[in-house]
Amino acid sequence: MRPKPLSGFPEFLPAGRIVEQAVLDSLRQTFELHGFASIETRAVETMDALTRKGEITKEVYVVRRLHAAEGETGDDLGLHFDLTVPFARYVLENAGHLAFPFRRYQVQKVWRGERPQEGRYREFVQADIDVVGENTLAGHHDVEVALVMLEALETLHTRFGVPPVVMHVNNRKLAEGFYRGLGVEDHMAVLQRVDKLDKIGPDAVAALLVDELGLSAEAAAKCLELATICTPDTSFVERVRALGVQHELLDEGLAALAEVVEAAEAAVPGRLVADLKIARGLDYYTGTVYETEMAGFESLGSICSGGRYDALATDGKRTWPGVGISVGVTRILAPLIAKGELVASRSVPTCVLVAVDAEETRGTALATAAALRARGIPTEVAPKADKFGKQIRYADRRGIPFVWFGGAEGDSVKDIRSGEQVPADAATWTPPAGDLRPSVGRQA
Amino acid sequence: MRPKPLSGFPEFLPAGRIVEQAVLDSLRQTFELHGFASIETRAVETMDALTRKGEITKEVYVVRRLHAAEGETGDDLGLHFDLTVPFARYVLENAGHLAFPFRRYQVQKVWRGERPQEGRYREFVQADIDVVGENTLAGHHDVEVALVMLEALETLHTRFGVPPVVMHVNNRKLAEGFYRGLGVEDHMAVLQRVDKLDKIGPDAVAALLVDELGLSAEAAAKCLELATICTPDTSFVERVRALGVQHELLDEGLAALAEVVEAAEAAVPGRLVADLKIARGLDYYTGTVYETEMAGFESLGSICSGGRYDALATDGKRTWPGVGISVGVTRILAPLIAKGELVASRSVPTCVLVAVDAEETRGTALATAAALRARGIPTEVAPKADKFGKQIRYADRRGIPFVWFGGAEGDSVKDIRSGEQVPADAATWTPPAGDLRPSVGRQA
Repeated sequence: MRPKPLSGFPEFLPAGRIVEQAVLDSLRQTFELHGFASIETRAVETMDALTRKGEITKEVYVVRRLHAAEGETGDDLGLHFDLTVPFARYVLENAGHLAFPFRRYQVQKVWRGERPQEGRYREFVQADIDVVGENTLAGHHDVEVALVMLEALETLHTRFGVPPVVMHVNNRKLAEGFYRGLGVEDHMAVLQRVDKLDKIGPDAVAALLVDELGLSAEAAAKCLELATICTPDTSFVERVRALGVQHELLDEGLAALAEVVEAAEAAVPGRLVADLKIARGLDYYTGTVYETEMAGFESLGSICSGGRYDALATDGKRTWPGVGISVGVTRILAPLIAKGELVASRSVPTCVLVAVDAEETRGTALATAAALRARGIPTEVAPKADKFGKQIRYADRRGIPFVWFGGAEGDSVKDIRSGEQVPADAATWTPPAGDLRPSVGRQA
Repeated sequence: MRPKPLSGFPEFLPAGRIVEQAVLDSLRQTFELHGFASIETRAVETMDALTRKGEITKEVYVVRRLHAAEGETGDDLGLHFDLTVPFARYVLENAGHLAFPFRRYQVQKVWRGERPQEGRYREFVQADIDVVGENTLAGHHDVEVALVMLEALETLHTRFGVPPVVMHVNNRKLAEGFYRGLGVEDHMAVLQRVDKLDKIGPDAVAALLVDELGLSAEAAAKCLELATICTPDTSFVERVRALGVQHELLDEGLAALAEVVEAAEAAVPGRLVADLKIARGLDYYTGTVYETEMAGFESLGSICSGGRYDALATDGKRTWPGVGISVGVTRILAPLIAKGELVASRSVPTCVLVAVDAEETRGTALATAAALRARGIPTEVAPKADKFGKQIRYADRRGIPFVWFGGAEGDSVKDIRSGEQVPADAATWTPPAGDLRPSVGRQA
């Protein structure tokens, strides 16, 4: 009779949820410190909006009323599979009410009908930041979103022990300019094949470039050399220059990428590299692209990705360019929580359990609890006037650190971890700051 | 080309979202102060779980993969229409890992395929608290969940000016015992007809009771009298007694309801009444039932409802009784925000905009912003080195209260509401506490 979990739809026990809440609160705090405004969009979009990009169509979950009325087209809504499509629609729908550049963050569940596997879920939480402009958007926002996201992830690392990350950044103009500088017309065709580097290896990619696209062996070799360049500083510029290719777009891409790398070196040293093989899909992004690996969890794939769009949205007359990054909160947390590596100090918010002597004196216990809560101390009253040993076990099972006892000889509070019990007054007693709320940290 | 809103799927502009976030934060704070632990369940349940209760079947949204594989049953998942069904399933699924009585809150979107109208949405946020026990659950939790929810709603009232509420409470045992005491076997049949009181009036209900159920005119009159009893204190007990009906179950219901009313009178005077016509559906609840009206918004219907279940969940061997209340966050907020009655002081979290002299000195502005953020002050840097007047307009359009200017003669900060500009140091300057974050309040 016990229901089974649904594969691909992770749920947390209460202690795991405390970890998730702490992480979400921390992300929100960083985003808001940088002036990003929260929005939330509906879970459904029209199928038209969801399938416009074509490629992802088959992962969509269609939503329809069980008893759709006669003649009602039932299949025109689907669950969103990311937060970018809904955001683009929100911008178009509300453009008249938004101030541009518009900086938003959005933390919501998304759904994909993919086959579940490690790091892939059918329902998962994403946290996105984007800056979108009306008709134009300055390049410094490409630097900004990378730094804000790295600061958010670095805070998760220092605050909770979430593993550190490295963000890999590239610029689509750089590769395009390079290929064009080599005399290639169809730069997307080259990109497509170079993108297979990790899967099929350099020799096979070179063969494809020569056989299918007619590149010279020398040009193919240069394309491959470009893809191997990965530097933690701006030295990639010189290494690209050394390949001797010239193009205006290449210069533009190099300068934009150098700006991101330079800023990150100063702000979050060691957390960002220029990685010239990063492509991020084929026709989505138009400038900077980001991908991020978490140390020790490289097999999960990128935990945080994004890039620049020349046209995040358009109404035919106006165009809204944007740049943004999305972090896969569930992708990071589900394995860490499941393996017990990221834990909460207790499974409830409660700091104090007020013991109950006898059901007749429950009112006294309730008054004590109210006095503690009035000063912001999360407090429960024992559900039953059991023997004190049993009431202490109630606290212990949940990780509640303090049990409060009232009595004729005055109140006292017991730290059930140390066993120490001291006289206390509910109007003034304060727990150590570290015990007020559950703490979240890495379990070695 | 501008997309149209989907009827029944409300979305907020950024300032409205700030209101919603403030309200959700406040609810969470109250629930956690009382030791309720957060859980979040997946958006989908099996259709089997969703349709077990029968009556609500046609409101369910079915979810299936657009390209479900051959032979894959595509129609076996649906979006949850409340948080009680998922919670019951979660309790069954995880019973071995939970400590009972288990106190949880849950704040999530739910979906119903109903025809949208005022106060009715197809997607909306609910916030639920429940206490669930293993095999038994003490009656004082019926008092507790009412008081916690009233404290949460009262905090929204005093903190943000959300209209005050009145919770109407009844006990299903009271009515059942009363009808049985009148010699009626089929008490549900009576309840069903009395439940139509508001729609068809007392004369028509009396006629139904006499004609369809064979009650004497006197018995029918007593049933109607019972339903008119509504008192802010325990005087309802005497008024019921005066009707001269005797039954054990009636005594039990009267005592349980009196306990709730008495506790509420002391804790949140004026916010709870015993209202003996409240039924809350026909076969769901088994004891205390709650319904809540918001002053001035009675036409929305109940904004906060719930009750006691003898068997929230069961696995055949064990049973988990529960008591809980659910507040319709969207039902409260959507009209208040749409009418401009509940507003945020700005549309962004940003407290300070750092102006940029020239693109070459953007680095200085970024350093100033970092210094302010390091002390918890939400700060943005102007996106463009426009004329200062234009940068001030950028702040003004978003409601950002302060603009920071750097310069050779030292830094200064301007309150753009008063126009006052004073010298300031980014390492020490602090905004008034009321300006640090957007404030939320009632607009008369």
